[in-house]
Amino acid sequence: MAWNTNLRWRLPLTCLLLEAAMVVLFGVFVRYDYEADPHWPEEKRHKNIISDSENDFYYRYPSFQDVHVMIFVGFGFLMTFLQRYGFSALGFTFLLAAFGIQWALLMQGWFHSFKDGYIRIGVESLINADFCVGSVCVAFGALLGKVSPIQLLIMTLFQVTLFTVNEFILLNLLLVKDAGGSMTIHTFGAYFGLTVAWILYRPNLQQSKERQSSVYYSDLFAMIGTLFLWLYWPSFNSAVSNHGDAQHRAVINTYCSLAACVLTSVALSSALQKKGKLDMVHIQNATLAGGVAVGTAAEMMLMPYGSIIVGSISGIISTLGFTYLTPFLETHLKIQDTCGIHNLHGIPGLIGGIVGAVTAASATSEVYGHEGLVHAFDLEGGKYNRTTQLQGSFQAAGIFVSLAMALVGGGIVGIILKLPCWGQPPDENCFEDEIYWEV
Amino acid sequence: MAWNTNLRWRLPLTCLLLEAAMVVLFGVFVRYDYEADPHWPEEKRHKNIISDSENDFYYRYPSFQDVHVMIFVGFGFLMTFLQRYGFSALGFTFLLAAFGIQWALLMQGWFHSFKDGYIRIGVESLINADFCVGSVCVAFGALLGKVSPIQLLIMTLFQVTLFTVNEFILLNLLLVKDAGGSMTIHTFGAYFGLTVAWILYRPNLQQSKERQSSVYYSDLFAMIGTLFLWLYWPSFNSAVSNHGDAQHRAVINTYCSLAACVLTSVALSSALQKKGKLDMVHIQNATLAGGVAVGTAAEMMLMPYGSIIVGSISGIISTLGFTYLTPFLETHLKIQDTCGIHNLHGIPGLIGGIVGAVTAASATSEVYGHEGLVHAFDLEGGKYNRTTQLQGSFQAAGIFVSLAMALVGGGIVGIILKLPCWGQPPDENCFEDEIYWEV
Amino acid sequence: MAWNTNLRWRLPLTCLLLEAAMVVLFGVFVRYDYEADPHWPEEKRHKNIISDSENDFYYRYPSFQDVHVMIFVGFGFLMTFLQRYGFSALGFTFLLAAFGIQWALLMQGWFHSFKDGYIRIGVESLINADFCVGSVCVAFGALLGKVSPIQLLIMTLFQVTLFTVNEFILLNLLLVKDAGGSMTIHTFGAYFGLTVAWILYRPNLQQSKERQSSVYYSDLFAMIGTLFLWLYWPSFNSAVSNHGDAQHRAVINTYCSLAACVLTSVALSSALQKKGKLDMVHIQNATLAGGVAVGTAAEMMLMPYGSIIVGSISGIISTLGFTYLTPFLETHLKIQDTCGIHNLHGIPGLIGGIVGAVTAASATSEVYGHEGLVHAFDLEGGKYNRTTQLQGSFQAAGIFVSLAMALVGGGIVGIILKLPCWGQPPDENCFEDEIYWEV
Repeated sequence: MAWNTNLRWRLPLTCLLLEAAMVVLFGVFVRYDYEADPHWPEEKRHKNIISDSENDFYYRYPSFQDVHVMIFVGFGFLMTFLQRYGFSALGFTFLLAAFGIQWALLMQGWFHSFKDGYIRIGVESLINADFCVGSVCVAFGALLGKVSPIQLLIMTLFQVTLFTVNEFILLNLLLVKDAGGSMTIHTFGAYFGLTVAWILYRPNLQQSKERQSSVYYSDLFAMIGTLFLWLYWPSFNSAVSNHGDAQHRAVINTYCSLAACVLTSVALSSALQKKGKLDMVHIQNATLAGGVAVGTAAEMMLMPYGSIIVGSISGIISTLGFTYLTPFLETHLKIQDTCGIHNLHGIPGLIGGIVGAVTAASATSEVYGHEGLVHAFDLEGGKYNRTTQLQGSFQAAGIFVSLAMALVGGGIVGIILKLPCWGQPPDENCFEDEIYWEV
Repeated sequence: MAWNTNLRWRLPLTCLLLEAAMVVLFGVFVRYDYEADPHWPEEKRHKNIISDSENDFYYRYPSFQDVHVMIFVGFGFLMTFLQRYGFSALGFTFLLAAFGIQWALLMQGWFHSFKDGYIRIGVESLINADFCVGSVCVAFGALLGKVSPIQLLIMTLFQVTLFTVNEFILLNLLLVKDAGGSMTIHTFGAYFGLTVAWILYRPNLQQSKERQSSVYYSDLFAMIGTLFLWLYWPSFNSAVSNHGDAQHRAVINTYCSLAACVLTSVALSSALQKKGKLDMVHIQNATLAGGVAVGTAAEMMLMPYGSIIVGSISGIISTLGFTYLTPFLETHLKIQDTCGIHNLHGIPGLIGGIVGAVTAASATSEVYGHEGLVHAFDLEGGKYNRTTQLQGSFQAAGIFVSLAMALVGGGIVGIILKLPCWGQPPDENCFEDEIYWEV
Repeated sequence: MAWNTNLRWRLPLTCLLLEAAMVVLFGVFVRYDYEADPHWPEEKRHKNIISDSENDFYYRYPSFQDVHVMIFVGFGFLMTFLQRYGFSALGFTFLLAAFGIQWALLMQGWFHSFKDGYIRIGVESLINADFCVGSVCVAFGALLGKVSPIQLLIMTLFQVTLFTVNEFILLNLLLVKDAGGSMTIHTFGAYFGLTVAWILYRPNLQQSKERQSSVYYSDLFAMIGTLFLWLYWPSFNSAVSNHGDAQHRAVINTYCSLAACVLTSVALSSALQKKGKLDMVHIQNATLAGGVAVGTAAEMMLMPYGSIIVGSISGIISTLGFTYLTPFLETHLKIQDTCGIHNLHGIPGLIGGIVGAVTAASATSEVYGHEGLVHAFDLEGGKYNRTTQLQGSFQAAGIFVSLAMALVGGGIVGIILKLPCWGQPPDENCFEDEIYWEV
């Protein structure tokens, strides 16, 4: 089938319409949070805050910047591993994320900080918008090379919406804790993307097979992405945790988990190859599974050794997944997962959800202190008269809700993206910058 | 004409003389600011400061590091897009910026923090020095490939000096606000560089035309620069704003403006190409215009939708500029602008100045609160009995002063750089690392 | 000699055994520091701390992240300069550092924060672990291309151990100050690595000579490493200094020293080449010597001009070292120093130790204030009744202890690594990714 891949009017119109909508909606709805408002000095006196250093900005801005780098440099460069798809990997991530963060500010604003007719945004909103877009980047990983930028914008529009609904159900209805987003970002993003990939299955993709591998320099560029993701993941998992000990602990746990994950990924990578040689795919991807798998529990009292166990296991499972599961998914389930997101975000995301549920269920006021326990799980004021066991069950429920939302949402969005009008590339031009870029 | 491009004695002597001058001048003039001085604990008690966290260092250091990355990695890699000029792009940026920040510490110190015979430097001085050098990097963009490292050092020496004078006129005499430097850094830097480029016009530059384009990997390297500039721009525009809400707000505004700018740049890039394909030049450059254009007003109550409007417009204008204006400048005005700084810094800088003037003029104590308004525009103590309308006029005056300084200064410096003794490359060796580097 | 370089069982087993040991040891020994513990709110009230912003996390986390980037991105990419060794440069740095930081948390924990049977870790522990691994990365630089990943893991195991013992002697017994680790990290790491390189001398290394040079793109990748090291070095030298003025001052000094170092490195690079052309090796490496050389004294009252002098001198000496000393070491002392760590870490480390000793010896309570002097050198409570002159002597002693530990330790470890069972590459396959990687 010969689709028309000339995007000359479709892409500009899509971008401009979306951006015009943003202008109107921001104009009607979005204002500054009071900590970003010049009335802040008066508010401070009011709330008996004595110093500017108490502005949430200073607690979260360094983490925000790290998360920001992860989304655009991390995800962007990680996907440059294909030999002739670097422009698209970077450019399309740039495009979808730039649109996604604006739309996420609105969607998350309506659900989480809508008051007196206005959405109030501050540094935490920016982090959450980046988080939301992170899940779109995850899904993009499954589709890399096979979709047009218009399809990506459409997907972003819908996925951000569904993400926010799912997040609202988990955080506000089920009262689940998910600091690093193992469920809301990774599980949801991965299974959403895999479902879309399943619907967009291309039986004749072997026509562009030669371009589906990496070359020497493309692998080096991809390592820029890997390393910045790996290094800043402690910021990711701690960025929206409670001030003080919770942020501090989330960093320590993530640091430990990721370090352990590198060793088991390398071990398995070597063990799975006949001559014991290392495979760059594993080093680029499986080493990051530890960050995903420790996401939910990072701010909890998982303990450093707990983090190391989680990281070790996820490095092993992730590497095994790249070797055995990805080919199986393609051959038997007709899911073509370009970047192997199932191994980096899907399974580790599930592990993360489970670890979080177990850690929450086994929390005691001995370990946390009474005050600490109440604070850590927001069990304040008897409002939610929950035991930690019950909290654990709700956490587990959050996994299933995320999975269900991802499968149903991905199904619907996949069908929309299958329409032949979005300028998708023909099978023989997949994984090729030339089709959308002047090279 | 065959210039001598062997720099063996000229470059070392220039560097060593400049550095020796730095040693002497720093020895005579530069000391630590009191917050970086071990007498600080006593000062603290004196000023009734209760915590080390009140040290300005903690308010500004994360932003400083981001700005630092923008200057050296951002500008450096952005200019590696030429196929055989990566060493020079990175190496010369490194050299001129390393010299420039030292000289800027002195110049800005004499003008802004000279007291009792000493310049007192702290983290804010380091940020301002980086800012100042940013304007030299902007100007370098117009000259990329056509000048020798000695010329760049000479230019840095003069441009930093003129920058500081201009900045002093704007900030201290006109009492203009310019947090992100739309006027002082971008407008000044761009028109300074363009004037120099005009004077150094090379009619036979087509002799090195083939090297004036990019290749696949050089474009990927350039994206490292683009992305770090784009990601850290919120830090740039907020780095020297007032503590608390002003920094917070500057980040939000810049984030919004840049996000919007990406969408309109992509839209125009596709619309301007016959087959609707995207052009890497636009993605690398025009996407950043939103950061420039929101510079002056970032800390003001521009509102998130205001930022999005500014970003959207500047993305459009910048992309149009790359397509139509750059060739026009070269053909009709004899300005060879290698990186298209007129589109990324020149016009967006002017937009930024205008937006700042309008935003200042329309500031009301209803929006800012009385205290907030006084604080935001330093209208304290009745010292400057200004209305906001008057402030707006002064802001507008700042644009013209910056332009005038840039044109006159650039003219003088251009004439100096035209002297045939600086080892500049002949036309047929422009845009080529081999002439100054062992390759 | 034909060693077996198939690592299929040896590498996986080594990694998994080491990681299993980490799990057990972390389980038995490692817990959270009280500032990362949910009992913190109660502790706060106890210690009369009024705000979460007093948590050490907020003083050190931004610096920690910068240091983290330096170790993995900085050292990793700096070593990608070889034409076909980028995978190993990045992958092996990743592997050894990921293991090293875990082992360092334990070792440093036992020596520095072991109490009631537990090691308590917080953000400062993470920084110190990264520091410790930094010294292993330094040593790796001398061996780059000539060792297997198993050898690197073994070396890391021993070097981290010896590092910690040496650090304990310096910091806790000699009561030496060494904020940026000129002695503990750079001097120790460099001479340790050089001793190992001396023992692993390969007389027939010319067989892989052609791969020992760089190519155009590999040099650009290396500049990513250089720039992030250079930019974040102020964070490195200030990361564990006292809160407030000391951190502030360490940043200023390092910033100045590094800026000066760039100019003298460029000057010498051009002066030492017949046609005055610049050499990428110098730009990539010698420009960093200023950060090393100012390490010990960075937090002291070195004064900005002092820093500039130190930086200028170390840039000159380092560049001279690359031109004259590295070939001399190889030809006459049989030390094959792949990255020239002697010029970047060895000599500048010694300079740093000496500058630190002199600066400490000349400290007066006039310059520091009485309280400041006591605080800066931990001369509190008359516990150590030292004059600053005596402190200077102890600082000098620290240099010799570090050297001795490096030579003896490097000798022993070198002999262990010479055993023929670690899968080291044959001479004709050195500097070649293919031997350990699927390419």
